Amino acid sequence: MSGNSFGRNFVVTTFGESHGPALGGIVDGCPPGLELTAADLQHDLDRRKPGQSRHTTQRRESDRVEILSGIFEGRTTGTPIGLLIHNEDQRSHDYSEIAERYRPGHADYSYEQKYGVRDYRGGGRSSARETAIRVAAGAIAKKYLAERLGIRLRGYLSQLGPWRPRGFDWEQVEHNPFFWPCAETVPELEAYMDALRKSGDSIGAAVTVVASGVPTGLGEPIFDRLDADIAHALMSINAVKGVEIGAGFACIEQKGTEHRDPMTPEGFLTNNAGGILGGISTGQDIIARIALKPTSSIRLPGRSIDRHGAAVEVVTTGRHDPCVGIRATPIAEAMLALVLMDHTLRHRAQNAEVVPPIPAIPAEPRPNS
Amino acid sequence: MSGNSFGRNFVVTTFGESHGPALGGIVDGCPPGLELTAADLQHDLDRRKPGQSRHTTQRRESDRVEILSGIFEGRTTGTPIGLLIHNEDQRSHDYSEIAERYRPGHADYSYEQKYGVRDYRGGGRSSARETAIRVAAGAIAKKYLAERLGIRLRGYLSQLGPWRPRGFDWEQVEHNPFFWPCAETVPELEAYMDALRKSGDSIGAAVTVVASGVPTGLGEPIFDRLDADIAHALMSINAVKGVEIGAGFACIEQKGTEHRDPMTPEGFLTNNAGGILGGISTGQDIIARIALKPTSSIRLPGRSIDRHGAAVEVVTTGRHDPCVGIRATPIAEAMLALVLMDHTLRHRAQNAEVVPPIPAIPAEPRPNS
Amino acid sequence: MSGNSFGRNFVVTTFGESHGPALGGIVDGCPPGLELTAADLQHDLDRRKPGQSRHTTQRRESDRVEILSGIFEGRTTGTPIGLLIHNEDQRSHDYSEIAERYRPGHADYSYEQKYGVRDYRGGGRSSARETAIRVAAGAIAKKYLAERLGIRLRGYLSQLGPWRPRGFDWEQVEHNPFFWPCAETVPELEAYMDALRKSGDSIGAAVTVVASGVPTGLGEPIFDRLDADIAHALMSINAVKGVEIGAGFACIEQKGTEHRDPMTPEGFLTNNAGGILGGISTGQDIIARIALKPTSSIRLPGRSIDRHGAAVEVVTTGRHDPCVGIRATPIAEAMLALVLMDHTLRHRAQNAEVVPPIPAIPAEPRPNS
Amino acid sequence: MSGNSFGRNFVVTTFGESHGPALGGIVDGCPPGLELTAADLQHDLDRRKPGQSRHTTQRRESDRVEILSGIFEGRTTGTPIGLLIHNEDQRSHDYSEIAERYRPGHADYSYEQKYGVRDYRGGGRSSARETAIRVAAGAIAKKYLAERLGIRLRGYLSQLGPWRPRGFDWEQVEHNPFFWPCAETVPELEAYMDALRKSGDSIGAAVTVVASGVPTGLGEPIFDRLDADIAHALMSINAVKGVEIGAGFACIEQKGTEHRDPMTPEGFLTNNAGGILGGISTGQDIIARIALKPTSSIRLPGRSIDRHGAAVEVVTTGRHDPCVGIRATPIAEAMLALVLMDHTLRHRAQNAEVVPPIPAIPAEPRPNS
Repeated sequence: MSGNSFGRNFVVTTFGESHGPALGGIVDGCPPGLELTAADLQHDLDRRKPGQSRHTTQRRESDRVEILSGIFEGRTTGTPIGLLIHNEDQRSHDYSEIAERYRPGHADYSYEQKYGVRDYRGGGRSSARETAIRVAAGAIAKKYLAERLGIRLRGYLSQLGPWRPRGFDWEQVEHNPFFWPCAETVPELEAYMDALRKSGDSIGAAVTVVASGVPTGLGEPIFDRLDADIAHALMSINAVKGVEIGAGFACIEQKGTEHRDPMTPEGFLTNNAGGILGGISTGQDIIARIALKPTSSIRLPGRSIDRHGAAVEVVTTGRHDPCVGIRATPIAEAMLALVLMDHTLRHRAQNAEVVPPIPAIPAEPRPNS
Repeated sequence: MSGNSFGRNFVVTTFGESHGPALGGIVDGCPPGLELTAADLQHDLDRRKPGQSRHTTQRRESDRVEILSGIFEGRTTGTPIGLLIHNEDQRSHDYSEIAERYRPGHADYSYEQKYGVRDYRGGGRSSARETAIRVAAGAIAKKYLAERLGIRLRGYLSQLGPWRPRGFDWEQVEHNPFFWPCAETVPELEAYMDALRKSGDSIGAAVTVVASGVPTGLGEPIFDRLDADIAHALMSINAVKGVEIGAGFACIEQKGTEHRDPMTPEGFLTNNAGGILGGISTGQDIIARIALKPTSSIRLPGRSIDRHGAAVEVVTTGRHDPCVGIRATPIAEAMLALVLMDHTLRHRAQNAEVVPPIPAIPAEPRPNS
Repeated sequence: MSGNSFGRNFVVTTFGESHGPALGGIVDGCPPGLELTAADLQHDLDRRKPGQSRHTTQRRESDRVEILSGIFEGRTTGTPIGLLIHNEDQRSHDYSEIAERYRPGHADYSYEQKYGVRDYRGGGRSSARETAIRVAAGAIAKKYLAERLGIRLRGYLSQLGPWRPRGFDWEQVEHNPFFWPCAETVPELEAYMDALRKSGDSIGAAVTVVASGVPTGLGEPIFDRLDADIAHALMSINAVKGVEIGAGFACIEQKGTEHRDPMTPEGFLTNNAGGILGGISTGQDIIARIALKPTSSIRLPGRSIDRHGAAVEVVTTGRHDPCVGIRATPIAEAMLALVLMDHTLRHRAQNAEVVPPIPAIPAEPRPNS
Repeated sequence: MSGNSFGRNFVVTTFGESHGPALGGIVDGCPPGLELTAADLQHDLDRRKPGQSRHTTQRRESDRVEILSGIFEGRTTGTPIGLLIHNEDQRSHDYSEIAERYRPGHADYSYEQKYGVRDYRGGGRSSARETAIRVAAGAIAKKYLAERLGIRLRGYLSQLGPWRPRGFDWEQVEHNPFFWPCAETVPELEAYMDALRKSGDSIGAAVTVVASGVPTGLGEPIFDRLDADIAHALMSINAVKGVEIGAGFACIEQKGTEHRDPMTPEGFLTNNAGGILGGISTGQDIIARIALKPTSSIRLPGRSIDRHGAAVEVVTTGRHDPCVGIRATPIAEAMLALVLMDHTLRHRAQNAEVVPPIPAIPAEPRPNS
């Protein structure tokens, strides 16, 4: 498989740069018979898109997606689904100063080391614009998983710089610009972000995604364990520098008696495993958390070099997110959806006839953090 | 690709269970002309194997590897390399009680949900014995990377439960049973582990792996970014619940001005990126850290269910590691080696003729933590 | 990999149906720095497109391709190249009778058995329209192979029903509607085809493709031998029912002394091998020939069943090729180009540093049949 | 995927050279619960192995296979199955003359051009010994396909040099050394082969494989059409130079009215399609025929060059098959089994829930040639 494809049986391949004419993708392997329209994809695209609050980049894109194939009379046919999103608001002149310089903390230098060339406008292929297609493709997976398997996939911003939620309410997540699960602290986040924007700096964040109602048995040991593929998928998102499942890095200081989740006929009692044991889903909520670095696209000057190796100072003008974590939730949900969709099909390929010795035991109640 | 294969151009496929006759693997895609003998692989296998100190499982395996193909007159031919390790010390009667019960925190339940059956002896395929083959294959990659590209790959135990090193010296890592980089604190670790073993409980750990001398340009955006493949590789190791690159989860609270690594003609000034930007190597040290959960194979009883769904209490007897992190360092090195090897070949496939605008700038001095 | 992707390192993924809004594809893995414009692709698309003579389907499509990504300042960047061709002349009402019936010899029945549904307009995904994207992608490969490696790829119609060329001249191939290499017999072919069209029937054909200047060493034994991948690529073209390499089926009656191609320091003396030995290229011309079945889309009635299992008679109206072989040459060239491109990169991945004991010996003079 | 792996969901990876210690393979993706022992594989291995009649190479190998993993209490577990066959009768001194010379028509020259080196003993990896593992893996697939799906896979020698069967009886195939379906002509074949062996020359052959009881719906358009994967699989067998499906090359001269297979409620009336339409199985017998070239390992001298580029004469001594087609039947069956097994799982992944509009119509009566 190529670097721009994800998945084995439900495969998503994408193309598109920040300032090219369009972004697009192909979803191959979708089961037939699923009702699907562009509107189904637009919802998640609208959650992701830039320019919706003063806290994110002011680039205006409608991110309107078209479905070019794979649908007949409103349902998927099983043939590949072509997706297209036209770029509308590319302002190339914002980036002309960057043509000769490497922005520190960005992919400019590494892309030119790899390819000998880069499309410097807006970061080219390294720009997070390409995530729009991931979200569109993920929406197809989400719909199938929800309708056919009853899997619910949701995410939220679980940390913004030093801020953590004080309470937790899923209902709040879609009602503020941050995907923040705690209404009480939203004003503090807004004040924090306003100050940050004025300062010209940026901040990191953490996003948590949760999949509920996952059947047991997903995951392909030993290399394509479900958690390994989830880590792959989430780490492939721009700015992600860490992934943890369940108790994650807290495991280090846990004793075995604390960490392991007891099982009873009524269900699991805890969920430190994050829904995965031995790389295979247990039916419990799958809980993954990612760490996103602060963007390097900031107004404050930084030391760098140019394409001739000379020392320069770099200031990024243009339109940027002071916290890329704010728009990351739909992207993380989409990637988790793609993993679960692919694994659903992979598991079905080999084990469709398997009858486990006992039915799956219930998952434990939803965790809040 | 199948779940038991790793890599696209340098592909490792493995088989083997804890109590089967043998473990084995096939390494496909190794460049020809590399001098290679079984002894080259044995060194890392010996670092990994059980029973070498009182702090690890007392199962005695020589883990002697044979090379069955792919070598002629002492050098690789470019044809697939077959590896075999015979299991010697399988004590099946230790596990017969487990045949009917699901050990909490283990893969027993999830495997039976997936396959309808499991080889219960020693955990079958879910046992960490299969990592022996990963280490053998990784040793081939390590040798090539070192000899042909000057890449040095080393790891160490960076946290054991609450313990962190007080100083750092690479030289210490191979001189204690823990791969611990701080001689001063070794007695404390030993005392801690002795007490732990007596208590019958287990503890988590963290391991850090570092690759130095990595060329620029490795990584295949957007889905097979180098960090995404590293996360995949490391998360596929038994007991791993988290992976971070560079500053990792510390990024969350970092400002952009703090996080981004300035570049000068003399080199990078810091390495929060962990050697990867935009998913592509920058020439700086690649630094990855994993969190390993405490093993659930402990003498202390746990609540669980059996294959009929009835409540039971489970006690694991037999021979186990009270801290699986102690033997994880060679496995993590091996997986990082496999990723870098695969990406070296993948990058070469597409970009062998590329000449970057400027030579790579130097990496910054080696980080110690 | 998915069924709609071809290749391992140079990967082409396509989408699009006969009567959907558009066809498209993504080319992933193209080396950077190749000069490329849509015009470079249009030439081969124009050779393939329908409606250019009275001997092919009268559907009018301009098959104008757009490049949506992967190019910057006129050269490839190494990032994925998005291709798009809009469908223009879909006449849906021509196919409404077919909605309920399975055309014998077509994919209607098999698609509905597989997916439970089919886009019946024009054959949907099973229509040869999708080959337009293969030709566009193949043109990228052709350009790279020609400019960087001096590989020349050409094909021609080597048999039309009972007709074989009486002479052979490459120069003639582009100067008649058939890609026929013999000017003398063109009038006979035209008369034959006119009679065929009047009769309402169709006929089979054979196409031969030749690659010259191929370097030695391409091919990945044992399963991805170069000839195995060529067979895969060519058999994936609609209507192909047979593939042979070099002497092909004539081998059956050859003695070893006749078949094997002697080697001398001045070069090979014959080329029964068709340029491939042990699945690896020898530097000789790669010669492959395919057999194309007569299309089942004919005006003459045929016995079939409908979607309820009842017996029906089926007559295909609408616009069709009486001999699909006539437009197959550019498609076969494109598929051969994709195989050689992919194998060039795969070989480079593993063996870029290899120096063979002796330089490649010359190929023998070009064969004519 | 690597060149030594075949399949996407049922993946076979192999290693091993003619004169190495052992051949081996890994089968990954086998559904759990299949009863399996080494004896199940031995039957087909015994059909394939050398030295069973005077008409094949006199190398003596027991080809005794061991299963090293993936089985528990007599049934597959779903974990990877490791296979091993030790080489017993390697006579290295037979090949020492060949160390410096390239045998014409063999892979010696092409392997050294690719890898810079070759294991010259017995052809190394290019030797047909590796097909033993393919046959063992194919036997696993055959068993599953037969027991779970009622698919029957059989092959036979359909042409030996100028000889074609005069009658056809499946029962004869296992009762002569040739897999020949016509008892009457066996003495003529034996006389022919005795004369051939005396002459020191070799001859080509054709083998036909038939799969009956195949369900509809197998195949993954457009690139992994079932016939494309069959062509790939069969062309990957040593000495194969052509593959055809159904009417194959006879299609060229067929009219559409002759070629297309009429459908009735009682079933298909003919089978020119060879069981595949639009790349998807129709339920009819899948019929594939391969052309095998005459081996170049003959006693009669041939012109060639050596590793220094000088002209030499080459005579192959040692033990060889004068007609490799004679032992090819089990190999071709095995490859067809692997394709059908892989496609069964791939189809199940995406379409397990599909209900076609009508049940599959019957296949037509078994063809005899």
